[in-house]
Amino acid sequence: MSVKTIISEDFLLSTKTARRLYRTYAELLPIIDYHCHLDPKRIAENSGFTSIADLFLGGDHYKWRAMRSFGVPEELITGDGDPRDKFREYAKTVSYAIGNPLYHWTALELKRYFNVDVALNGETADAIYDATLPLFKKEEYKPRGFISRSNVETICTTDDPADSLEFHDAIKKSGFGTKVVPAFRPDRCVNIRKTGFRDYIAKLGADGYDGLKRILSGSMDRFAAHGCRLSDHGLDFIPEKTKESPAAAFDKAMAGGELTDAEENAYIYDMMVFLASEYARRGWCMQLHVGALRNVNGTAYERFGPDSGYDCIDDTRLARSLARFLDELDALDALPKTVLYSLNPGDLYILGTLMGCFQKGPSRSRIQLGSAWWFNDHRDGIEAHLKALANLGVLGTFVGMLTDSRSFASYPRHEYFRRILCDLLGGWVERGEYPDDEETLGAIVGGICYGNAKEYFGF
Amino acid sequence: MSVKTIISEDFLLSTKTARRLYRTYAELLPIIDYHCHLDPKRIAENSGFTSIADLFLGGDHYKWRAMRSFGVPEELITGDGDPRDKFREYAKTVSYAIGNPLYHWTALELKRYFNVDVALNGETADAIYDATLPLFKKEEYKPRGFISRSNVETICTTDDPADSLEFHDAIKKSGFGTKVVPAFRPDRCVNIRKTGFRDYIAKLGADGYDGLKRILSGSMDRFAAHGCRLSDHGLDFIPEKTKESPAAAFDKAMAGGELTDAEENAYIYDMMVFLASEYARRGWCMQLHVGALRNVNGTAYERFGPDSGYDCIDDTRLARSLARFLDELDALDALPKTVLYSLNPGDLYILGTLMGCFQKGPSRSRIQLGSAWWFNDHRDGIEAHLKALANLGVLGTFVGMLTDSRSFASYPRHEYFRRILCDLLGGWVERGEYPDDEETLGAIVGGICYGNAKEYFGF
Amino acid sequence: MSVKTIISEDFLLSTKTARRLYRTYAELLPIIDYHCHLDPKRIAENSGFTSIADLFLGGDHYKWRAMRSFGVPEELITGDGDPRDKFREYAKTVSYAIGNPLYHWTALELKRYFNVDVALNGETADAIYDATLPLFKKEEYKPRGFISRSNVETICTTDDPADSLEFHDAIKKSGFGTKVVPAFRPDRCVNIRKTGFRDYIAKLGADGYDGLKRILSGSMDRFAAHGCRLSDHGLDFIPEKTKESPAAAFDKAMAGGELTDAEENAYIYDMMVFLASEYARRGWCMQLHVGALRNVNGTAYERFGPDSGYDCIDDTRLARSLARFLDELDALDALPKTVLYSLNPGDLYILGTLMGCFQKGPSRSRIQLGSAWWFNDHRDGIEAHLKALANLGVLGTFVGMLTDSRSFASYPRHEYFRRILCDLLGGWVERGEYPDDEETLGAIVGGICYGNAKEYFGF
Repeated sequence: MSVKTIISEDFLLSTKTARRLYRTYAELLPIIDYHCHLDPKRIAENSGFTSIADLFLGGDHYKWRAMRSFGVPEELITGDGDPRDKFREYAKTVSYAIGNPLYHWTALELKRYFNVDVALNGETADAIYDATLPLFKKEEYKPRGFISRSNVETICTTDDPADSLEFHDAIKKSGFGTKVVPAFRPDRCVNIRKTGFRDYIAKLGADGYDGLKRILSGSMDRFAAHGCRLSDHGLDFIPEKTKESPAAAFDKAMAGGELTDAEENAYIYDMMVFLASEYARRGWCMQLHVGALRNVNGTAYERFGPDSGYDCIDDTRLARSLARFLDELDALDALPKTVLYSLNPGDLYILGTLMGCFQKGPSRSRIQLGSAWWFNDHRDGIEAHLKALANLGVLGTFVGMLTDSRSFASYPRHEYFRRILCDLLGGWVERGEYPDDEETLGAIVGGICYGNAKEYFGF
Repeated sequence: MSVKTIISEDFLLSTKTARRLYRTYAELLPIIDYHCHLDPKRIAENSGFTSIADLFLGGDHYKWRAMRSFGVPEELITGDGDPRDKFREYAKTVSYAIGNPLYHWTALELKRYFNVDVALNGETADAIYDATLPLFKKEEYKPRGFISRSNVETICTTDDPADSLEFHDAIKKSGFGTKVVPAFRPDRCVNIRKTGFRDYIAKLGADGYDGLKRILSGSMDRFAAHGCRLSDHGLDFIPEKTKESPAAAFDKAMAGGELTDAEENAYIYDMMVFLASEYARRGWCMQLHVGALRNVNGTAYERFGPDSGYDCIDDTRLARSLARFLDELDALDALPKTVLYSLNPGDLYILGTLMGCFQKGPSRSRIQLGSAWWFNDHRDGIEAHLKALANLGVLGTFVGMLTDSRSFASYPRHEYFRRILCDLLGGWVERGEYPDDEETLGAIVGGICYGNAKEYFGF
Repeated sequence: MSVKTIISEDFLLSTKTARRLYRTYAELLPIIDYHCHLDPKRIAENSGFTSIADLFLGGDHYKWRAMRSFGVPEELITGDGDPRDKFREYAKTVSYAIGNPLYHWTALELKRYFNVDVALNGETADAIYDATLPLFKKEEYKPRGFISRSNVETICTTDDPADSLEFHDAIKKSGFGTKVVPAFRPDRCVNIRKTGFRDYIAKLGADGYDGLKRILSGSMDRFAAHGCRLSDHGLDFIPEKTKESPAAAFDKAMAGGELTDAEENAYIYDMMVFLASEYARRGWCMQLHVGALRNVNGTAYERFGPDSGYDCIDDTRLARSLARFLDELDALDALPKTVLYSLNPGDLYILGTLMGCFQKGPSRSRIQLGSAWWFNDHRDGIEAHLKALANLGVLGTFVGMLTDSRSFASYPRHEYFRRILCDLLGGWVERGEYPDDEETLGAIVGGICYGNAKEYFGF
C-alpha cells in the first residue's frame, strides 16, 4: 500500500551524462518564469492556504479535468465538498492517471515542498492530508514561501492594460526577493466581436480608435515603468488584412453594430500591427498563442466561467495567414522579438519552419518556437518540442520553460523540464550523436534553463 | 530458409515488469470485441474454410492492399487464381512488409491457431499451406472454433436498422458460448445524399420524417432486446446546424430533389441529435468515426465495391464543428456515452482534449478516445494512442482494444494490443516514472484489457 | 577544446545487427541520387572552390537559415565578409545546433572528404579552414572529384523544358564516370498566374495552348533522348477540375488578363493531366511535391531571390483533391509511376494511405511515399517516414533517399540515411519484431539503398 514515491535523485535521468549535465548545469540555476497566471494580489497579500486540497485544487483546472474524467462528482472537485474528501478523490484519480504529467508534477510537489516519500493514492491520501495540515500555518507554506523556496528570480504575471498595477507596486515595496513584473495582455482590446468589448472600451475612456491607441500606448509606458518586457496574445484566428476601415469598424462596434468578418479582420489586423510596432519600439517580446478553442461546453461555461477546464485544441490552418502577418510586420520594421506558440502539436513543424523565415541578427533566435505548453507540457510533448526545435533551428538559443500556471506549487514543472532536457541531450551524447564537449554542453544547458531567457527578454 | 518465427513467450515484452504484468493481469482475460464486422450469418451457419488462403485472404482488404503494393496481379489477390499460389504471393509480400502489423498479426495467427514455428515467406509458404490444409475439416477451424479458442466472451457485430437479427436469434438458440450481439449502424438513414437513400427509406416503409424516426426507435428497441449496447456512425463530415428544415429536406430527397449543402447539414444534424438522444435514453454508447475518405479509386470501386481496400485517411478540420455538436447534445441532456475515433493520427490531440470538455461523473470517462484503429492499429499507432490518452486523460479508465475485423482469425490483435500496453506500462515502471505498485497496476491493466469495457458498455 | 568528432565506424548503429546490415548490404553500394539541384554547367565545367567556406556556404540555404537563427550578421552569411570569418561563424552556429542534421552532415562531410577528426566549433574553425585550404587545388576537391569519390552512379539534375541540355551533352562527351541525366520540371508552364508566365511561354514560341502541348511533348522527347526518367512538380495547391475552358484560360493569360481561381484551376488541372499522360506513355516517374510555402519573407525575397532560405511548411488540406486528381488519371489510364512528397510531416499518414488506393501490379509500389526531404531529412524525420511507410505499405519496395541538394559535398546524406535505415531494421530484429532472416534482410536493405531505385526508375 505505502509504495515509495518515484522521485529519486535520478528521476528521468537515464544516462550518466544526463545526470552530470543536470547536477552541474541545470539543477541549481534560478527560475525565470516568464509566463504564468499567478494573481499579483495574492502575492502582495501573501494570504495562505487552508490545506493541501486548497493548495492543489484551489484554482487548477488541469486537475479538475482529470477528476471529471475519473467520474468524481463536481461537488468534490470545485464544489462544497469536504477538503479531505476532495484530496482523497484527487489521489484516487491521479493514481489511475498513469503517464499523465499530473502524476509526475504531484509527486514532485509532494516531495519538494512536503518531503512526502510515499506514492499518493486513495489509501495514502488521508495520512498525507493530516500530516501536511499543520504546515500551512508556516510562512514557507504561504504563496511567497513557495516562490522563495523554489529559487524563482523573476515572475511575469499576466495583466490587463487597464490594471492599476497596484499589487505589483505593493510587492516591490515589500522588498520581496523575487522580481514580480507584469506582462501586457490586451486581448480585451483586440477581440472586437466578443461580449463586453464596448463596455470595456468605455471603461478605458477611449475617445475613438486613435484615442484607444493613445491609451494603450500610455498603458504600455506604465507597464514598462513596472519592468514589463513581454506582451501576450491569445488569438482565436490569425487576422487577415481586408479593405475595410479599422477605425470605421471600431466606431460601428462602439455604436452597437454587428461587425462583418471583413470588418473584424480589418480591426484586429490593424490593432495587432499597431501593438507589434509599439512592442518593437520598446524592445518587448510579443507572445502569440494560437490553437486554443475556448469554453466549448456552454453549460459548464455558464456555471463555472472561463478557465475552468473546458478548453480544447483547435485545428485551424495558420501557415499562410501567419506568414503574411509576420511578413507585413517585418516589412514595416515593426516585428518585435516574437514567441510563437500553438496548442496543436501538429503545428510544431509549421511554426518551426515559419520562424526560420524571419530570423535576423544580432538577436539569437529573434523568433522563438514557444515552449511545450498547457496540453503539451508532458514528457512526450516537451521532447517533441525540443526535437522539432533541434531539427529545424538552433536549440542552444531556446529561451526555455514557463509554467503557464495558476498554482503556487507549480515550480517543479521547471525541474521536470530541466530533467527531460538533460536526459535528451545526455542521450544524444551517449549515443554518439554529439561530442562529449563539456564546455559547449554546459553553455547550452545553462542557456536554455536560465541564461537565454535573461538575455532575450532583457531581465 | 526455415527461420524461426518471431513469436516467443516474450514477444514485444522488453522488461521484466512488462512480462509480469502481461502474464499476471492481461494474458488470461477473456476478450470483449465490441466493434467488428464479422458476418452473423457466418457465425450462425458456422460454415468453414477451404484452406489457409481462404481464411487469410477471403475478405481481408488489409492484406489485399499489401499484395497490390507488392505488385501481385489481382488474379492472385481477389481473383480466380489457385489458392496455393495466392497464399505464396501473400507470403512473399508479407516477408518484405517488415515493420507492418500484418507481419506480426500473421505470425501470431500462424502460431496461435496452427502452431507454426517457422517464419512465413515465399519459400515456406507451400509447406505451411499443405500442413494446414487437413485442419480445416476440424470443428476448431470453423468460425465458432476460432472464436471459442480465442476466449472471446462478447462480440458486437455491425448491423443495419432494417436487419431482422434472425442470425443473432439463431446463434443464441444454438447455445454458442460466446455472446454475439448486434451494434446499431444507421448510416444509410443518415447519408441523405448518397445513392440509394430513397430506395432504402422506401424499403423501411417510413411515412415522412417523423415516421422514419418512429421506425428507427422501434428498431432500437428490437436491437436492445437482442442485447445491443452500442451504435456506430461513420461520418464523412461533422454536420453543422443550419436554418433549413430537416423534415423539408427529407421530403425533398424522397421526392427525388437535389439537396443543397445547407439542407443536407440540417437533416444530418437533426437526425444525429435524434439518434443520440435515443442512445442516451437507453444507456447505449455512441461511436463516432471521422477521418475516412472512402472509395477513392473509382475504377476499383466499380469492379470490387466498397470495403475492398480503396479507402484512405482524410484531413478535414473537425474541432469546431464537433465541439458545437457535442455541446448541443450536452445542453439537451442528450449526450450518450461516446467513443470518438479519427482515422487521422493528427487528430489524436484534438479529440483527446475535446473529450475532456464533456467528461462528467458518475461515469468514468463518459467520453472515450477511440482505440488505435484500421490504419492505426500498428505498434506505433497503438503506442501513440495510449500515450496521447495518458498525457491528456486518465489512462486507467480506457475501454481498450477492438478488432474492427472481417476475419475470424483476427483475435490475436487483442494479444498484440495487450503486449504493447504491458510493455509501455512496464517501461514506465522500470524507468521510474510510475511506482511499482502491483495492486494499482494490476487494476489498470485488467481494466483496460477487459473490466472497463464490461462496465462501460454494460455487458 | 579539441574534442573528437562523433563520426566513428558505428555512428548511429546501435545494435550488432544494425552494424552487420550496414557493413554487408548498405555501405558499399553506389548512390543513385535521383533528385537534386546541382548545376549541370558546374559539373560540365568542373570549376573548383576557393575554400571550405565556399564549398559549405556557397549556395546552401539550409546553413544560411541556421546562421541567421544564431544571430550572425548577413555579411558573414551571404555577404562580402571574409571567408575565414564566415566559416568560423558557421562553426559556432553548428556547435550550438545540437540535434540538427546540419551537425551530423557537417561532421560527416569533414570526416569523409577532409579526414578531419576534431569536432567543429568556434575554436577549431580556423585550424580546419587553414588545413583544408590547399586541398582545393586538387582534382578530387573539384565538383567531379566530390561526386566520384562518393561512389555516385547516377545523378538526376532538375531542368526546365526550355533547357538546351548542352551541359548534359558536354558531361557525356567528357566521359565522366557518373551518369548525369536531366529531370523534367515544367513548373513555369504550369503556374499560369505567376509573374513571368507570359514571357516564358512567348520565349518557348508556343502558338496557342495546343502549340504549348506540342512543344512540351517535343521537349520530353529531347529529355528522354538524354536519359531522363523522372519529372518533378512543385505544387502550391492540388488543382481542382472546374467547368472553365483550359485553352480559354491560357489565351486570357497570354493576352494579359487576370485569371479567376476557377480558370487557374481549369488550366493547371488540364495541363497536369496532359503531362501525366505523357509521362505514363514514356514510362517516366512523376514526382509531386506539396506542402511548401515559398518566399514568405518579402523583404528577403527582393534582396536574395528564391531558394535562399525563406520557405516554410504549409498546412493545406490535400486528401480529397489529391484523391480526385489521381483517380481521374487512373481512370484515363494516364497515371504514371508517381512519388508523393509533402513537406508537412502531418501529411505522412494521409499520403501513405492514399497511395495504397492506387497500387497495382506489375510494378512494385507504383505509387511511392517520397523520402523524408528538405525540412524532414533529420534523424527523426527519416525514422518517421520509414515507420509510416512500414506501417502502411511494403517497406521493402521503397526507392530510398535523395539529397535534394545544391551542394557537391552532400552525398554523406545517403550514408546518414543508410545508417538510420539499418539501425531501425536492426533494432526490430534484435527486439524480436522481425526474424533474423539474413537473406530477406539483405535483399530489403540492398533494395532500399540502391536496387529498387534502379529498377523503379529504369536506370
